[in-house]
Amino acid sequence: MDKDFNTKLNEFKTYLKDVEYLSGAIAALYWDSRVNIPRKGVAFRGETLGYLSAELYKKQTSDAMRDFIEYFSAQADADAVTRAMADRAKREYDRSMKIPEERYRAYVVAVSAAEAAWEEAKEKTDFALFKPHLETLIGFNREFIEYWGGGAHGYDRLLDYFEPGFTTEKLDSVFGELRNAIVTLLNGIRQKPKPDDSFLKSKFPIDAQARLSHYALKKMGYDFEAGRLDVSVHPFTITLGRGDVRITTRYYEDELRSALYSCIHEGGHAIYEQNIDPALAGTMLMTGASMGIHESQSRFYENLIGRSRAFWEFLYPETQKEFPQLTGVPVEAFYKAVNEVTPSLIRIEADELTYSLHIIIRYEVEKAIFDGGAKVDDLPALWNAKYKEYLGVEPKNDGEGILQDTHWSGGEFGYFPSYALGNLYGAQILNTMKKDMPDMEKRIASGDLMCVNNWLKEHVHKYGAVYLPGELIEKVTGEPLSAKYFIEYLNEKYRDLYEL
Amino acid sequence: MDKDFNTKLNEFKTYLKDVEYLSGAIAALYWDSRVNIPRKGVAFRGETLGYLSAELYKKQTSDAMRDFIEYFSAQADADAVTRAMADRAKREYDRSMKIPEERYRAYVVAVSAAEAAWEEAKEKTDFALFKPHLETLIGFNREFIEYWGGGAHGYDRLLDYFEPGFTTEKLDSVFGELRNAIVTLLNGIRQKPKPDDSFLKSKFPIDAQARLSHYALKKMGYDFEAGRLDVSVHPFTITLGRGDVRITTRYYEDELRSALYSCIHEGGHAIYEQNIDPALAGTMLMTGASMGIHESQSRFYENLIGRSRAFWEFLYPETQKEFPQLTGVPVEAFYKAVNEVTPSLIRIEADELTYSLHIIIRYEVEKAIFDGGAKVDDLPALWNAKYKEYLGVEPKNDGEGILQDTHWSGGEFGYFPSYALGNLYGAQILNTMKKDMPDMEKRIASGDLMCVNNWLKEHVHKYGAVYLPGELIEKVTGEPLSAKYFIEYLNEKYRDLYEL
Repeated sequence: MDKDFNTKLNEFKTYLKDVEYLSGAIAALYWDSRVNIPRKGVAFRGETLGYLSAELYKKQTSDAMRDFIEYFSAQADADAVTRAMADRAKREYDRSMKIPEERYRAYVVAVSAAEAAWEEAKEKTDFALFKPHLETLIGFNREFIEYWGGGAHGYDRLLDYFEPGFTTEKLDSVFGELRNAIVTLLNGIRQKPKPDDSFLKSKFPIDAQARLSHYALKKMGYDFEAGRLDVSVHPFTITLGRGDVRITTRYYEDELRSALYSCIHEGGHAIYEQNIDPALAGTMLMTGASMGIHESQSRFYENLIGRSRAFWEFLYPETQKEFPQLTGVPVEAFYKAVNEVTPSLIRIEADELTYSLHIIIRYEVEKAIFDGGAKVDDLPALWNAKYKEYLGVEPKNDGEGILQDTHWSGGEFGYFPSYALGNLYGAQILNTMKKDMPDMEKRIASGDLMCVNNWLKEHVHKYGAVYLPGELIEKVTGEPLSAKYFIEYLNEKYRDLYEL
Repeated sequence: MDKDFNTKLNEFKTYLKDVEYLSGAIAALYWDSRVNIPRKGVAFRGETLGYLSAELYKKQTSDAMRDFIEYFSAQADADAVTRAMADRAKREYDRSMKIPEERYRAYVVAVSAAEAAWEEAKEKTDFALFKPHLETLIGFNREFIEYWGGGAHGYDRLLDYFEPGFTTEKLDSVFGELRNAIVTLLNGIRQKPKPDDSFLKSKFPIDAQARLSHYALKKMGYDFEAGRLDVSVHPFTITLGRGDVRITTRYYEDELRSALYSCIHEGGHAIYEQNIDPALAGTMLMTGASMGIHESQSRFYENLIGRSRAFWEFLYPETQKEFPQLTGVPVEAFYKAVNEVTPSLIRIEADELTYSLHIIIRYEVEKAIFDGGAKVDDLPALWNAKYKEYLGVEPKNDGEGILQDTHWSGGEFGYFPSYALGNLYGAQILNTMKKDMPDMEKRIASGDLMCVNNWLKEHVHKYGAVYLPGELIEKVTGEPLSAKYFIEYLNEKYRDLYEL
């Protein structure tokens, strides 16, 4: 590389550092708003976050940024990291800049109104209150799809933002296979008796739950010297900067599984962030490869590890120590209880098996909106029919139906599929991991969860966003994403659990 | 006012809002760094704070700021708030801009080195390690004094920053009187037996201390919906923005007084901030009038209220409830124990009576440096002689002598006097308050601390920084600052306590 290239690269990295500082400050203030803020400080904090976000947007869309992107995009023989950095910068820059500024401002106003309307509609279980706002947001997104290149499958433009490289063609194929496999399993399970979970109907003191969550997180290799666990209304993971990746949860005294699994899930996200190569600082690549890959890591820990027999062989003695009422309950019974399958209406309460069906329904409905010309008026009925068909349950009202999630009111169309992709990525990665570590279950059962952490760090985490999700999964597993591994995993696990 | 004026005023307020947002973000990150941050996140957070502080400095010293200041400084017939805003903006702008940029940068580097050197010197109790750094910082400050106007009493230029309008001429007079009065009292007290404080040598569980601190703060009127109480190594108060003024403390299991009085002290600072008229938002005046006035409010609650008989009549039953070992200890004995006088070497451990002597010594030494040509080599001896003379105690080494406080290593010369001024302001304000509320002691004894909060809000707090400290004290008490009221207060209280 010539001298000019290196000078330019240093300039770009210096520029991106300021972007990181602003992002880190915004993340810290956001975290504080969810965990600490006193009621009367909320309004000013909102204004402060608005100010900093506008400053960040200015930096991300400046002429300087455009010049850097132009320069580095033209360097075809640069190293992989530099090219990935330029690609990512260009993708985000184009995404923002292709929308005329006044249209984007109008959209922000519309989203804000839609969020308020959704809250009221959800509370009153009245879709009519949200409907005009949903129509407006869909209209904006249709318009944006045209700015971003349009085409016959406009929905692809939305998918591409959250999971670069993925299209409806690909998703139709993997989600179709997955849906059929789950529905078949579910029909079998419906004929079988429910496992006994009476021992979970009890009081589990919150301080004991917190100790158990800390214990599990430490064993997983979540670094408490580079993070914290706090309490907030909704659990989340957030990176405040290098060496500071925090997670939150909430505890219910009468529910043992909820906080523990939310900690394991958020811990999976956080371990990913903690394990990224620090040399990627200042390149825009010190983050997850995509929403779907990020979700694959949280679900890897939550389900593939955290709902396995081996995991409970290791964690159950500690659990019994914290909750003496479990003395006498065999580990096998506990393992069955944390894997209970119950088709339900609410995604966030779904079990491992049926979870993906909630996502696939949302995917099919979004596709119908953007590529199938579905009318907003017809969405509740379409929604309910799909729940009936796939899960065998029907919403009594729109609150537990089409209004259940807030994402649409925030304009997030195309985001949901990444949740189900996470399951597919995870199982495919697990398949490779097991080949590399044939004794992995034995190690987990003995409490050595670091073998998982180390393997993921070495094969997935350390790369950050250097590879696109499709590239990464091929690099890790030697083949493109397929539904096969997750379907095999589900069949093996649930045929065993329910003796199908 | 003409239309142009109002347009300009709105523009200026909009500009100052951004300054408030940046300051609020910095405060929130600083608070988080002291209360929450995991060890490995410290380095990045430092960089982030550096970035945001530089952005704030740019806004405070921009051409736009200069133009606003020029415009509003020329509006002689503007209202009081606008004039105060322009004056304050000009004072801070001049303070920064009169120092050549490269000299200020060099100073920042020197301060950073001095802070590290002070830490080592303090640990090793070796003044020689700090001496060259102290000489450098004094040299810089002598240079800055010239930029700021020089004159025969250069030290006045430093004092003026922390306590606008105050000079060595004024301080020599009030501090001289005060010093003589305290030394006389102290000589009397030395002849008397110490009060019994054996009941304070006990274990005070930390959760009970925290409950008592919360109880006292609520009674004082600290608004927990607009703030929080957390734990940090050193107690502090910080305003994160409108409706968010937080305080911290630390608890020692074998010391009951320490955390409680630090909460009452910081609570006094915080109540001041919480009570400022919100209409002053966006004017630079929504803050304390000066360091000294701020300190007067914290000391008002800590000493004039919190170490009074009436206060303990109210708080003692709750204290006994939390700490059953105090059952049988009369409230009068407890009152005497929290007012024990013990001349010591360390300012931050000093009692109410001797505290001001520590400040006066620091003041006299700083004056000797900047106006008296004292050599740095001679400072330890000068320091030790003054402790011997005024307090009757002598440092065994420089660690408990001249090295005790970090302020000089941060370049803060001229800051200390505000601590003692706080005592003088407070007693003078108390004198007026008692005239307004002759039954105030009875009300406090009955638990009505809100009468104090409301009076201070109405007469002091709500004005924020609209008035300079000298103006404010005259407005509140009808006369200029005098040492008389504090001396009267000390004489009355300590002659009674020690039967002199």
